[in-house]
Amino acid sequence: MGPDHGGRLNRAARDYDIPVGDWLDLSTGINPRPWPVPAVPTEVWQRLPEADDGLDAVARRWAGAPPHAGCLPVAGSQAAIQGLPRLRPACRVGVPQPGYAEHAWWWQQAGHTVVPVAHDAVDGQIAELDALVWIHPNNPTGLAVPVDRLLAWHATLAARGGWLVVDEAFVDPTPGISLAPWADRDGLLVLRSLGKFFGLAGLRGGLLLAPQSVCQALDQVLGPWAVSHPTRWLMARSLADTVWQTQARQWLADAASALDTTLGRHGLPPAGGTPLFRYCPHPQAATIHHELAQQGILVRLFEQPSALRFGLPPDSATLERLDQTLARTCHATTS
Amino acid sequence: MGPDHGGRLNRAARDYDIPVGDWLDLSTGINPRPWPVPAVPTEVWQRLPEADDGLDAVARRWAGAPPHAGCLPVAGSQAAIQGLPRLRPACRVGVPQPGYAEHAWWWQQAGHTVVPVAHDAVDGQIAELDALVWIHPNNPTGLAVPVDRLLAWHATLAARGGWLVVDEAFVDPTPGISLAPWADRDGLLVLRSLGKFFGLAGLRGGLLLAPQSVCQALDQVLGPWAVSHPTRWLMARSLADTVWQTQARQWLADAASALDTTLGRHGLPPAGGTPLFRYCPHPQAATIHHELAQQGILVRLFEQPSALRFGLPPDSATLERLDQTLARTCHATTS
Repeated sequence: MGPDHGGRLNRAARDYDIPVGDWLDLSTGINPRPWPVPAVPTEVWQRLPEADDGLDAVARRWAGAPPHAGCLPVAGSQAAIQGLPRLRPACRVGVPQPGYAEHAWWWQQAGHTVVPVAHDAVDGQIAELDALVWIHPNNPTGLAVPVDRLLAWHATLAARGGWLVVDEAFVDPTPGISLAPWADRDGLLVLRSLGKFFGLAGLRGGLLLAPQSVCQALDQVLGPWAVSHPTRWLMARSLADTVWQTQARQWLADAASALDTTLGRHGLPPAGGTPLFRYCPHPQAATIHHELAQQGILVRLFEQPSALRFGLPPDSATLERLDQTLARTCHATTS
Repeated sequence: MGPDHGGRLNRAARDYDIPVGDWLDLSTGINPRPWPVPAVPTEVWQRLPEADDGLDAVARRWAGAPPHAGCLPVAGSQAAIQGLPRLRPACRVGVPQPGYAEHAWWWQQAGHTVVPVAHDAVDGQIAELDALVWIHPNNPTGLAVPVDRLLAWHATLAARGGWLVVDEAFVDPTPGISLAPWADRDGLLVLRSLGKFFGLAGLRGGLLLAPQSVCQALDQVLGPWAVSHPTRWLMARSLADTVWQTQARQWLADAASALDTTLGRHGLPPAGGTPLFRYCPHPQAATIHHELAQQGILVRLFEQPSALRFGLPPDSATLERLDQTLARTCHATTS
């Protein structure tokens, strides 16, 4: 079995005997105000997707990737996370610790040696690595290593044929720190996702921005029609909708700030995060997680270190509900 | 590079300098009157799909599979075609010749020895095979081996731990010949697709019906959220829509019969097919294919043996257009 994940609302509904519709689900880092999906034309459902539909050019422009960078739409960045380890012979690969657990799992499954690396230990360990996965900004901590330092890591790895794989699933609220502008450099692989900022996790849309040869190799591993036609069609439209993107970045910043105020009021001041989620280390995280769930609020629990991750409430009414529930919970927990 | 396919309308539009919208595309076996896709709720685009949404039970009922058979939704039967070869150690696998080329490609990619098998040579070769892929009914010929004979092949293979993989992408117009009712037997693997009969090729929806252990192993290889949420949501609804399915079977039978009359009139009487496509061997297939394309009609060309495959025109106006174009083409070809 692979790693566990947030977003399992059906299971929580059963475990706590609360109907799915009664939950406030803050267990993901998904924008609760998604890009408004238009009606998908019949022929898009009907016809096989075609790789030459122009989506790659739209995506390259959106990401600020160079014209000669490869750009492969994938069925969520998860598809690239699963496929990329199959493109290299067995090697030593560093994965961020803590960090999204799927990276380590799939490199291991493909026979590689996985080395957990803390963000302050990379410089000491990089000489022993053939590849390094970096989550930028990190999930769940929100830590963003400066771009210069990432490019230096890349240069070190690339000089001996290595890879820096940068998972930018949560970069969209702060696109200025993306490594996409360098995605034509040998050994630099950038993953982007439509799931989080666009709020379209169900769509399963993502991108690999990397040298053409790497994109072609991943395309071969993933096979034909790996991304559904409605997904490609909606990706092209959402990536081109810069008006919505600008408004969404503003709303996310405001909503994250309001959430911080509420969390801080109940002894859970965030230690970090991104505008899409807030990260709150707390020694009694498991207890708080359980007591919130008993009251129909699902957040994400991390055990090492002991912490909670809160997604954004979609509006002031749900923020109020969180506020009141935390008031009861944190009183009970500390009494 | 993998095998070539039908359905590449964008490329034909460029090659023949005819705008995409002006083509009559008969190059696929996709129902041109698709299941009417309803509006997909926002939360379906937004939320990650969850494996415990009940889709497997709906699909098992639709297919007539036993309650204890495994049932894994996949991103088109293509996903299972790609993944299943990774579940067995290197072995000898028979693939139907002629037949959909993706099967042989992915078994080869996974390191297996692929043995092309003609439908009348299976009994002589099966003793030397560890697995056999069978396309039921065949694409492009339409040939359907009787169920009893398929079950006998399965018994022979299963007795020594082998597999019979039955690709039923085109079985829906004639569901009575499906092997799904036996999909709980060790070593019997049935692939189904939403692309052809439901006319939803863009959706990338399919199913593996097989023993639970095989479905679990494929699920591990394909990873989490391998099928998009809208795809799962629409699969559940289309598979349950038995009224539409009954009407579609009737329309397909009538449309195929009308197409046969037209093809026969121009010296292209089908040698076989299914209600979703007609198969016409012809020594000058390549010439006819090219001349139809020059007039904006795309059909599928097969070179060995030399043959054309015609999908169904969606209505009487397009059938008329095909009729008139064939009159010009077949005159030119034989003069």
